[in-house]
Amino acid sequence: MTDEFSRIARYFAPLAGEEGLGLANDAAVLKPPPGRELVLTVDQMLEGVHFLSGDDPALIARKLLRRNLSDLAAMGAVPMGYLLTTALPAGLEESWLAGFSAGLAEDQKLYGICLYGGDSSSARRDISLSATLLGHVAPGAGLSRGGAKPGDEIWVTGTIGDAALGLKARLGELTDPTGYLTRRSLLPEPRVGLSLAGIASAAIDVSDGLLQDLGHICRQSGAGAVIAADAVPVSEQAAAFGPDMLEARLTDGDDYELIVTVPPDRVAALKAACGALAITRIGHMVAGEGVEVRDPAGATLRFGKAGWQHF
Amino acid sequence: MTDEFSRIARYFAPLAGEEGLGLANDAAVLKPPPGRELVLTVDQMLEGVHFLSGDDPALIARKLLRRNLSDLAAMGAVPMGYLLTTALPAGLEESWLAGFSAGLAEDQKLYGICLYGGDSSSARRDISLSATLLGHVAPGAGLSRGGAKPGDEIWVTGTIGDAALGLKARLGELTDPTGYLTRRSLLPEPRVGLSLAGIASAAIDVSDGLLQDLGHICRQSGAGAVIAADAVPVSEQAAAFGPDMLEARLTDGDDYELIVTVPPDRVAALKAACGALAITRIGHMVAGEGVEVRDPAGATLRFGKAGWQHF
Repeated sequence: MTDEFSRIARYFAPLAGEEGLGLANDAAVLKPPPGRELVLTVDQMLEGVHFLSGDDPALIARKLLRRNLSDLAAMGAVPMGYLLTTALPAGLEESWLAGFSAGLAEDQKLYGICLYGGDSSSARRDISLSATLLGHVAPGAGLSRGGAKPGDEIWVTGTIGDAALGLKARLGELTDPTGYLTRRSLLPEPRVGLSLAGIASAAIDVSDGLLQDLGHICRQSGAGAVIAADAVPVSEQAAAFGPDMLEARLTDGDDYELIVTVPPDRVAALKAACGALAITRIGHMVAGEGVEVRDPAGATLRFGKAGWQHF
Repeated sequence: MTDEFSRIARYFAPLAGEEGLGLANDAAVLKPPPGRELVLTVDQMLEGVHFLSGDDPALIARKLLRRNLSDLAAMGAVPMGYLLTTALPAGLEESWLAGFSAGLAEDQKLYGICLYGGDSSSARRDISLSATLLGHVAPGAGLSRGGAKPGDEIWVTGTIGDAALGLKARLGELTDPTGYLTRRSLLPEPRVGLSLAGIASAAIDVSDGLLQDLGHICRQSGAGAVIAADAVPVSEQAAAFGPDMLEARLTDGDDYELIVTVPPDRVAALKAACGALAITRIGHMVAGEGVEVRDPAGATLRFGKAGWQHF
């Protein structure tokens, strides 16, 4: 590999916005958008934890940005730019960095964000990456996990469970003839750009599993949730694997769809805000605590876990 | 170890400022200080690269914050708060996390900053940490590496080379009877709080080695630098190792002192701004490029490297 400063100049300086000062200073300087609040989020992508060692570096880069973009989407924020850390083992091919920076460039363009700055390091063994993403919202308009009330309806965007099946396909545990599930796992579509302020009472993105993430809304809102197992939207490709996959669908993460709670009288507004994006009602909030999953006969289903945790 | 959410609640939620929303949301919401620009920086601390596997977790935490604080100091910014990422191997003792969060708490108090949010993950092997620190400056007042002009004097704060010797002491390569050099390596003192706007023409912190970091000022300013080897300030403890350590002193990093360039007519203001903090003139900027080091007889000294690079 070329030296650290040449690599920064070649692969990262072209990605920098003017706030990044050409990546030639100790820090970036940002004029905050007047009259707006800033929204800040950070996510990691680690070799052997969040991606497989042979994965395409461009897709790793794009998923790193998209996981963060999904967090901003769950807050109702408009994305602006990001800081990046890379820790790369010495033996890594230069082509990895070329692919990685090309992936960043592609999604920067797609989502209208730029690179503010970062830190590059060598790593002893595994690749370790993080991105800190900044966005903005109107004052007081940021969505939270804590505003859901009993009686609110629970809706989700898109389909749930594709990414977990896509990971199994990538590991050779099942076949994915169309490649759709694999793509859902490698390249999620963060639901940025929905104007949910004043509509949603709470929101979160599905990163750790539907039950666990909905559980966060319950805990922060001081309420419970009842959902219908057969209402959870499933893609055609995932449905082909039959009902055995229900637990995986509800407890595996990485879909980056949004769970949104909404008072019944704002459902029409929610649908209008989502436009062409499919959105499905899966249940409603109740007094109490925790998430209850019911089968079509109304019986409560129990699962061994709620979702993905680190350790 | 306890589960991820219990750990966040126990060790990290108490560190959160109100912007962190109790660490219970997808992102933090920050009201930017009115009429100020934001300054953003990020740094990593990786096991086996930036710290040794057995190092005290409280000191690792504090150095993580201090390396970032030093970047803000070099921009002349006032620190506000940070986002944190942790990636920890499954076998790590809970006491490590207790020590780590106690170290964060101590330096948060010392530097008046708070935790905004973060991301925690498991790691396959090595501990991997990063912090993204936010600060603010008056509009246009952020210091840069690019403003030095021929004729400007070059000054450095504190003493140079202690941290490199301290690392050697920690590795058992030399003795450090007072522990001073070891402390300088483990717990640098970022020079935040100096009001250098309108005084310094350029600034950078010494993280990768005096020659390399001064070289960044030269490159960004389109000028050269001449420094006197024997003018570089050395602590009593480092001086005890004699002149053989000159190259290490000039090319090893981790001191987190500031290099400041200043027009001669602002030297008095620089001294006043530094107050009780020792500051030493080591040379001056010239037309040309690169850093020239001269011995007391005026001969040019040559070194094998300028400073630390990753790979």
